[in-house]
Amino acid sequence: MKLQVKDLINFSRGAALLGTGGGGDPYIGRLMLEQALLKTGKLNIINLGEVADDALVVSVAMMGTPTVLVEKFPNGSEAENCLRAMEDELGRSIDAIIPAEIGGFNSAIPLVLSAQTGIPVINADGMGRAFPELQMVTYSAYGGAISPCVMTNERGDVVTIKSTNNRTTEMLARSVVMQMGGSAQICCYPMEGRFIKKYAIAGTLDIALGIGSAISQGRASGDPFEELISYLASTEHYRHSKLLFDGKIVDLVRKTSGGFTTGTASLSELGASEVSFEIVFQNENLAVRSGGRTLAIVPDLICILDRETAEPITTEALAYGQRVKVMAVSAPALLRSDAGLQAFGPKAFGIDEPFRPFESRE
Amino acid sequence: MKLQVKDLINFSRGAALLGTGGGGDPYIGRLMLEQALLKTGKLNIINLGEVADDALVVSVAMMGTPTVLVEKFPNGSEAENCLRAMEDELGRSIDAIIPAEIGGFNSAIPLVLSAQTGIPVINADGMGRAFPELQMVTYSAYGGAISPCVMTNERGDVVTIKSTNNRTTEMLARSVVMQMGGSAQICCYPMEGRFIKKYAIAGTLDIALGIGSAISQGRASGDPFEELISYLASTEHYRHSKLLFDGKIVDLVRKTSGGFTTGTASLSELGASEVSFEIVFQNENLAVRSGGRTLAIVPDLICILDRETAEPITTEALAYGQRVKVMAVSAPALLRSDAGLQAFGPKAFGIDEPFRPFESRE
Repeated sequence: MKLQVKDLINFSRGAALLGTGGGGDPYIGRLMLEQALLKTGKLNIINLGEVADDALVVSVAMMGTPTVLVEKFPNGSEAENCLRAMEDELGRSIDAIIPAEIGGFNSAIPLVLSAQTGIPVINADGMGRAFPELQMVTYSAYGGAISPCVMTNERGDVVTIKSTNNRTTEMLARSVVMQMGGSAQICCYPMEGRFIKKYAIAGTLDIALGIGSAISQGRASGDPFEELISYLASTEHYRHSKLLFDGKIVDLVRKTSGGFTTGTASLSELGASEVSFEIVFQNENLAVRSGGRTLAIVPDLICILDRETAEPITTEALAYGQRVKVMAVSAPALLRSDAGLQAFGPKAFGIDEPFRPFESRE
Repeated sequence: MKLQVKDLINFSRGAALLGTGGGGDPYIGRLMLEQALLKTGKLNIINLGEVADDALVVSVAMMGTPTVLVEKFPNGSEAENCLRAMEDELGRSIDAIIPAEIGGFNSAIPLVLSAQTGIPVINADGMGRAFPELQMVTYSAYGGAISPCVMTNERGDVVTIKSTNNRTTEMLARSVVMQMGGSAQICCYPMEGRFIKKYAIAGTLDIALGIGSAISQGRASGDPFEELISYLASTEHYRHSKLLFDGKIVDLVRKTSGGFTTGTASLSELGASEVSFEIVFQNENLAVRSGGRTLAIVPDLICILDRETAEPITTEALAYGQRVKVMAVSAPALLRSDAGLQAFGPKAFGIDEPFRPFESRE
């Protein structure tokens, strides 16, 4: 896969859609990526199949609350500091970087790091979307360890966490993120090539670009939503997608606490005043309900898009009065399995209802 | 210096007095030390002067809230895990251990570790008392770095913090302590022998034993306070001491928050009902006031002792109705210097008044 400066608007837009409300601000991600590409010119993206079985692969990402990230963005050296500290910790050099998640910001971080270091990035990730916690990754759901996990900030502080329990690692890392001011660079999940070839979600960088391009083409030809749904149906992971709601945001409760951005967006139909639709989020959109009925729930993707342009809107950018369409997209198969649902199903978020694919609801 | 099982009651009692309310529960410290001594029989305590200039010395301690420690005590392997992780981090073996502080529990930890590993413990510490925060140590006040700092818990989790800013290291470590349940084992301040020979408070393990022995002898001969004050006057660091108050605890506000035990004890004279004396604490006793006047303040030592037996009472063991005597003891010279006061003076605790030695107050 090739990614050039001219592709970045589409790529970031598509990544933001897959971020399903989270994954960080796509604008900042795109600016960082553009700058890195213009400076170094090199970006080595390889496919999952090209990774050697014994290659050492790690994930890098920004961890924290998206609302903080908008004002406290990286100085550009954290990711490489983090990677080098991980190499010191492991005592060997890292062969490839794999994104932890796809999102507007967190898809850019590994690419920027690749441009800086020349280490290849794998065209895949551990979710096919974004999730708020470190253990909510296929690598963890299928037996991989987050630890050792290295965290850095813009001041050069370095924290290394080692635990055999992924939930403990997440909790320790979350407390460090909060102390670091709400966001931090993280390098974790040291894995072998043979493991990620089995459990990563393949081709998602490609798909992000495809999604963004479909929206652009749709805008030119008249209906970005139609193009988008038709493109998603052609992909391996996102066969089903559907518009659930067309209306406006009439109430918004959003707070930054515990290292997350959490809240609820209430929507009504255009011209109506009563609330007929609700979306709850924890960094990412978790569930949509209407009249007491759940229409879609994690790990299925719930995307809030501008109702004219289909531009994805992240949770920290939601605002009163926005005219939006809400879309559900089926999650990749590895997320809908029993192991997947245990890691990222409704119960993992404290929602006491079973997962049901949105496309099987009437 | 020799320390045998028969000395442990006196040693722990004296260390608890120097802990000035903090430093952890002396009973648990003594039990751990007794068990370690009976099991291994070896305890190699060396004097500060015997340390080689180029020796690698580290501090070990339990960090957290004393109230938690009483119920969640170590399983015995944390300290060695912590030390070995520090050796891995530094890439060389550690030549000697120096206590960070003197306190009922935290004087025992390095000794237990020495008994387990055979690595000598230095008869000295970084405060000559106890303080609540990591950077409140002479090593930091005189230019040493806390970092790298390794933390472990009873489950085998390991967190390593590296920062050039000691205040940042304290804040990151504090957030990890809280996530680890309120207390954690810590190994930090890797230093050279030549540095600690200049800035450690020498002989404080000896003095702890001397204090405990003086109290015991005084109990036998009639007045433990008289013996105690006379012994302190003979030491290098604690020349001045004075009984400030004799009465009972009539009110106690104590909470566990932010990784500390904080609060206020109010006292009245025996037979009286109005409050005439107040002690504020943050793990350790910080200041005593009577009728709006400050009688003693950090870094001077403020010790609450049973009024009959002179048994030191730590902040987590304070209780309504206790009959106590309150004693002030002059802090070692390295703590009363400008550099010392910046690190552990009243302002370091948010108390807006200048330090004045208690013995110069009328």
